[in-house]
Amino acid sequence: MATSEKQLEELALKQYGEKSVYSRGLENVIIKYTALTFIDGNKGILKYRGIPIEEIASKGTYEELIYLFLYGKLPNREELNKLKDTLNSNYEVPKEVLDAIYMMPKDSDPIALLELSTAVLAGLEKDFKWSKDTDKQRAIEIIPKMAAMVANVYRHKEGKSPKIPSPSDSYARSFLEACFDRKVTDEEANVMDKALVLYADHEVPASTTAGLVVVSTLSDMYSGIVGALAALKGPLHGGAAEAAFRQFLEIGSPDRVEEWFNEKIIKGKNRLMGFGHRVYKVYDPRAKIFKSLAESLTQKNPDARKYYEIAKKLEELGINQFGSKGIYPNTDFYSGIVYYALGFPVYMYTALFALSRTLGWLAHFIEYVDEQHRLIRPRAVYVGPENASWIPMDQRS
Amino acid sequence: MATSEKQLEELALKQYGEKSVYSRGLENVIIKYTALTFIDGNKGILKYRGIPIEEIASKGTYEELIYLFLYGKLPNREELNKLKDTLNSNYEVPKEVLDAIYMMPKDSDPIALLELSTAVLAGLEKDFKWSKDTDKQRAIEIIPKMAAMVANVYRHKEGKSPKIPSPSDSYARSFLEACFDRKVTDEEANVMDKALVLYADHEVPASTTAGLVVVSTLSDMYSGIVGALAALKGPLHGGAAEAAFRQFLEIGSPDRVEEWFNEKIIKGKNRLMGFGHRVYKVYDPRAKIFKSLAESLTQKNPDARKYYEIAKKLEELGINQFGSKGIYPNTDFYSGIVYYALGFPVYMYTALFALSRTLGWLAHFIEYVDEQHRLIRPRAVYVGPENASWIPMDQRS
Repeated sequence: MATSEKQLEELALKQYGEKSVYSRGLENVIIKYTALTFIDGNKGILKYRGIPIEEIASKGTYEELIYLFLYGKLPNREELNKLKDTLNSNYEVPKEVLDAIYMMPKDSDPIALLELSTAVLAGLEKDFKWSKDTDKQRAIEIIPKMAAMVANVYRHKEGKSPKIPSPSDSYARSFLEACFDRKVTDEEANVMDKALVLYADHEVPASTTAGLVVVSTLSDMYSGIVGALAALKGPLHGGAAEAAFRQFLEIGSPDRVEEWFNEKIIKGKNRLMGFGHRVYKVYDPRAKIFKSLAESLTQKNPDARKYYEIAKKLEELGINQFGSKGIYPNTDFYSGIVYYALGFPVYMYTALFALSRTLGWLAHFIEYVDEQHRLIRPRAVYVGPENASWIPMDQRS
Repeated sequence: MATSEKQLEELALKQYGEKSVYSRGLENVIIKYTALTFIDGNKGILKYRGIPIEEIASKGTYEELIYLFLYGKLPNREELNKLKDTLNSNYEVPKEVLDAIYMMPKDSDPIALLELSTAVLAGLEKDFKWSKDTDKQRAIEIIPKMAAMVANVYRHKEGKSPKIPSPSDSYARSFLEACFDRKVTDEEANVMDKALVLYADHEVPASTTAGLVVVSTLSDMYSGIVGALAALKGPLHGGAAEAAFRQFLEIGSPDRVEEWFNEKIIKGKNRLMGFGHRVYKVYDPRAKIFKSLAESLTQKNPDARKYYEIAKKLEELGINQFGSKGIYPNTDFYSGIVYYALGFPVYMYTALFALSRTLGWLAHFIEYVDEQHRLIRPRAVYVGPENASWIPMDQRS
């Protein structure tokens, strides 16, 4: 079988003509245009609608970001209140959604549970139609249902009973209180809000791309999210924050970092998780913000502080070793410490990523279907036998 | 916002350099290489592993095709028997799968029911790892579970009780008998088998592409199918056979075809469903085979025959009108008549497509992950504001 890049390019040319392009992993292939997120991976710049992520993370809330993403401007007081009302009145999910989550074994994969419960919503959806007049409002109604589902995935796995998030002044607070059965502090709600902002969108990674392919067939919004979740579940995508934190757990103590690094990464040639990114060749701007959130949140929490100290040492060794190759901490390196300090078990980190990214998924879906829709249908280069015949059973080897 | 193709190409060049490519709907973009399926859309040629579809449909069975797709050769007697044994011993699905289907309202979308039941299997899967040593065997174990799920989606919607397919000499027969609670004739089993063969694969349409993006993150096989199903659910993809047949129902009688065509298609400018294909610019080779299956299967069935006669007349008018533009009947034009004659309600046609296509999905996933794996990560061209600032609440419009 022809497998060299050069041979494949020649076959593509022969089979599909001069306009055809072969690019492994769709690198450098543009799947859509967007006014949502801009990344300059060489300079470490991330902007949402032209505003640097640092500014949004310091001044904005997730609710304002929802509005900014969907409507292209920051909401005035009235618009923000209306959006919050819509969120607050849509946490309820149909009984079948909770039944689906709670009928599963407690050790089920959290993202698979989200695939399942979101598919339940796709099944209950009647006659969904994409329409510029209603898509944005529908997205705002869907987002809080994800909070209900993520909270109940957590509750089920922890052996708690079903609970729907209660209305509050903040989406982050409603979500955390539905998880933890207690009032959360303003600091906790604020940190959760920042985490939601930082993971809200990242242009078109595999999850968003999978969802875009789904909605390009005019499948419903929930099925788009199902497709995105299915991709997020993979260890090369959503699982990185979990994998990064499991390293810190394995190391166990700041004085063991160097030994572990030499053993596992240098000698063992294992991949340093939470380092390196297809797009960023410098320090991921989100990682810097997560680092400072982790720094301040762990100051009064010695247990979490330990993991922060481990991460900081590991970061230093990692950058010394790999920085010259453009491999730096990515957003998943410090986010787990923030989630840990908030009280979430490691298995929930990818689900928390999904909770936040639902906004980016939906905003990209709407941008694609409403403004630039076309069925996504790439091609494959054929490298098999040209002419073969059916061989009768008694002549087969 | 910049939206002309030319502007977008210029922006792509500026943002991503000379190697970048913008192609709407990923047209002419090669996402993988394959030794499975070859299509020449201009000549109306479809081959599986180099063997023309006409030869496979006349001489082969779906079981032989499973082996051919996964192992690259036709099975000898012993290999075929082993494969059939594996299929026969894997129809059973966990209780949670059936619970998930039967807890849903009967009028739920059938493909959404498949998304959710397949997601249950993803959730129950423990520590899935892709491996060349086990992937093909795993695929053969997964395929019969799809038969169990599709049969139970049908049974639930028809108000029947859960039932697992029983082992038999043919996958098609086991499936049909699980649906219909009766022995099926050899002719019925044979026609179902041909329908399975004809829909088994079609290179990389949206469903396969969505699934490929999912498994490129090394997510599990079931999640890959979930992503593919989510895309298949869209009316621009899997729904075409249903939509084509609904036209025949609406027309109602062969003597009304011309009037309907003039009214709806010519004057009303509605799209003729089951006509035209992104890849084929001539008669879809599968449509010819489905047509002859429909022709012979409806000979002793006057009710189904009526729809065959309607379709034949509609085909003639359609080709006269659109043939010169490269718009001809596609595989979905006659397949519904075959499904109808077998006794399936229209709502099941897309699910029957999914049942067959599971093979193509899994074979492409395995080919991609085992031989040419890379995380799929395209880019988006940014067309929004370059530099914007956070605006304080009291200064917002």
